[in-house]
Amino acid sequence: MELNSILGNFAAFLTTVSFLPQAIKTIKSKNTKQLSLPMYLMFVSGVFLWICYGIMNNQMPIIIGNIITFILAGIILAYKLKDVKS
Amino acid sequence: MELNSILGNFAAFLTTVSFLPQAIKTIKSKNTKQLSLPMYLMFVSGVFLWICYGIMNNQMPIIIGNIITFILAGIILAYKLKDVKS
Repeated sequence: MELNSILGNFAAFLTTVSFLPQAIKTIKSKNTKQLSLPMYLMFVSGVFLWICYGIMNNQMPIIIGNIITFILAGIILAYKLKDVKS
Repeated sequence: MELNSILGNFAAFLTTVSFLPQAIKTIKSKNTKQLSLPMYLMFVSGVFLWICYGIMNNQMPIIIGNIITFILAGIILAYKLKDVKS
């Protein structure tokens, strides 16, 4: 595997998996006061568009990576929305 | 401009700019207790690798988008590191 695709795959892995520790922290603490609602609304929407882009261009890495990020960031957004409503 | 590049550009815009409201919230509150340090360490590292990837492949959109994200997420990480040390 070329350096180029190693770099791209590792960058994608880090930016995807990075939302896992925040999701775990949010699930445990159930406290989202310092998390920005506009951030997660925009980010989750953007990730959803990346999934659509990946499907339109038949690019599995973009589809899979962004589905994982969508789920993790979506969990955080759900807790934030619940917090805002209560 | 084709639907395809509109979708990709808009997705990139949302996932990039989404860190602006979190950076503003963090600068104002100076409180990062609920933000995950491992998330921002991994995410900022991943975005840095995307910048290297963009340079290696001469892709300006990837370079510019990720430089903006690197600055915004880097600000949040700096506040988190300061909080952790104090």
